[in-house]
Amino acid sequence: MFSSNETPAGEFEYARKLGAIINLDDITHIPFLEAHGGIPEKICLRFNPGGEFSVSPTCMGTPGTSKFGMTEAQIYEAVEQLSKLGVKRFGLHAFLASNALDNEYYPANARVLFKLAANLHERLGADIFMVNLSGGVGIPYRPEEDMPDIAEIGRRVQKAFQEILVPAGLGNVQIATELGRFMTGPSGCLVAMAIHEKHIYKEYIGLDACAANLMRPAMYGAYHHITVVGKENSPCDCCYDVVGSLCENNDKFAEDRMLPQIDIGDRIIIHDTGAHGFSMGYNYNGRLRSAELLLRADGSVQLIRRAETLADYFATFDFAKLPFDLS
Amino acid sequence: MFSSNETPAGEFEYARKLGAIINLDDITHIPFLEAHGGIPEKICLRFNPGGEFSVSPTCMGTPGTSKFGMTEAQIYEAVEQLSKLGVKRFGLHAFLASNALDNEYYPANARVLFKLAANLHERLGADIFMVNLSGGVGIPYRPEEDMPDIAEIGRRVQKAFQEILVPAGLGNVQIATELGRFMTGPSGCLVAMAIHEKHIYKEYIGLDACAANLMRPAMYGAYHHITVVGKENSPCDCCYDVVGSLCENNDKFAEDRMLPQIDIGDRIIIHDTGAHGFSMGYNYNGRLRSAELLLRADGSVQLIRRAETLADYFATFDFAKLPFDLS
Repeated sequence: MFSSNETPAGEFEYARKLGAIINLDDITHIPFLEAHGGIPEKICLRFNPGGEFSVSPTCMGTPGTSKFGMTEAQIYEAVEQLSKLGVKRFGLHAFLASNALDNEYYPANARVLFKLAANLHERLGADIFMVNLSGGVGIPYRPEEDMPDIAEIGRRVQKAFQEILVPAGLGNVQIATELGRFMTGPSGCLVAMAIHEKHIYKEYIGLDACAANLMRPAMYGAYHHITVVGKENSPCDCCYDVVGSLCENNDKFAEDRMLPQIDIGDRIIIHDTGAHGFSMGYNYNGRLRSAELLLRADGSVQLIRRAETLADYFATFDFAKLPFDLS
Repeated sequence: MFSSNETPAGEFEYARKLGAIINLDDITHIPFLEAHGGIPEKICLRFNPGGEFSVSPTCMGTPGTSKFGMTEAQIYEAVEQLSKLGVKRFGLHAFLASNALDNEYYPANARVLFKLAANLHERLGADIFMVNLSGGVGIPYRPEEDMPDIAEIGRRVQKAFQEILVPAGLGNVQIATELGRFMTGPSGCLVAMAIHEKHIYKEYIGLDACAANLMRPAMYGAYHHITVVGKENSPCDCCYDVVGSLCENNDKFAEDRMLPQIDIGDRIIIHDTGAHGFSMGYNYNGRLRSAELLLRADGSVQLIRRAETLADYFATFDFAKLPFDLS
């Protein structure tokens, strides 16, 4: 599945070479793909219903200001154009809200896509082979939040399937998901050490990690739960800003967070970094991205990515024959 | 000059080895530096006056919630502690507001530091060798803004110097600046190409660049001026969102921006990226960071940084013997 937007020509060509199902983001990509890689027999279309997508008080998206996907009229037009260009089978895809914690978002998104599929099938005779519900099922970053009930979500999607797709003669449509955050987010954590404490107008704990290792708090003000190794059951009676070393005041893993009293050398666990963690890291201030370790079920640990070095940092400068030693 | 915060031991040791002037961010770093690198004879202290720092309606900072620097009481205490540890001469540093466009911020910051220097000299007999005014002088990202008058700023700093430092017997103090953004920001631009257009609920232009190349709009909602090569004098009568290719709706270089009508293939210039441009780039979605070219005054162009390749992207994975070819 190749979902992208503002796709360069070479990437369409490569996706076609790999035999990927291309998820077309825009109707204007039809002639572009025809020129760069060619139109396949199976293709997926990304839908954007516009406006606001409000499922519950805690789950809202704003497709109307999102750069992704096509309008409903464009989806119809795209099916007609692509059918003339030889496409035999169509998939549909939409992503309408992010990190939804309720059990309603995914079935609601499914109903939108199932109805569109049924209409395309009925009105244009489109052969629908897949509905890709995309991602959007969230994870409880905060301890007071509950994990979405994935089995219940599945039952509700199944109910929508029975109510909409089966009567439309689309009971054989494949259902695909892209639940990256849901699957990987809780499986990772950032392990840091408290290396400094600071007592000025607020109380600070300084870590040997920074936004280079996890950018979500800096970019979104996102909450990541923090625990202190060996102090999991200690009272959280100290209020800290837990910060990194960047020359950037948004480099704070937590602000005004109640935590156990932290001592220098304590191991600090920043939770739920398995998604949008390393992959969203940067090298600001020359900070290097960390190693990644895999903890297996049997307790063994394997290095799956080595830490960056200064030689990595300066790699694109190497040809300039730097006058200093990077070793 | 080594300004840092939450500094790891090895970095203090290396800064000492290089003979850098260490800008101590916190009073707790005194024993830490003593243990890791040793206390030098000359040292600089970073001041944070707390509260809000309001210079003009357009220039405000919030030192009270900033992780940087020491309180005034801590500065006094630090001078006393460090004097006992052998420090002979002191510098002072403060950064109280970012990207100030008026001519008032820098002189106001100077007055804060000059008064502190005079008081430390008078009360503790501190030998002050330097006041580092840090950065903070901004650049006009928007065309309707004016470049700060750096000569006028200099005159006002000089006036403060004459009024505060000279009468205090500190007429020989060095004045240092760190005007990185002011000097480099306007000297760089991100050159991209319009590769897609999209007509849904808004009008979009898609570029072959993204937040991997310039993150300020995504991270801060920052304005960067955009022009279209060859259309600099055309009427700006089209309203676009100018976007990159990331699977991230904040990957927009501009929202609702009035621009000349853009055609596919047009070269798009995103201005003032000489500071916080490449250095703040990331590799999200596997996007690679671009090359950097130096345009010399004589019109010649030199490659000063090559573009990243997939081999760079996977470099920290190399040891895992990936089963595919990166060439």
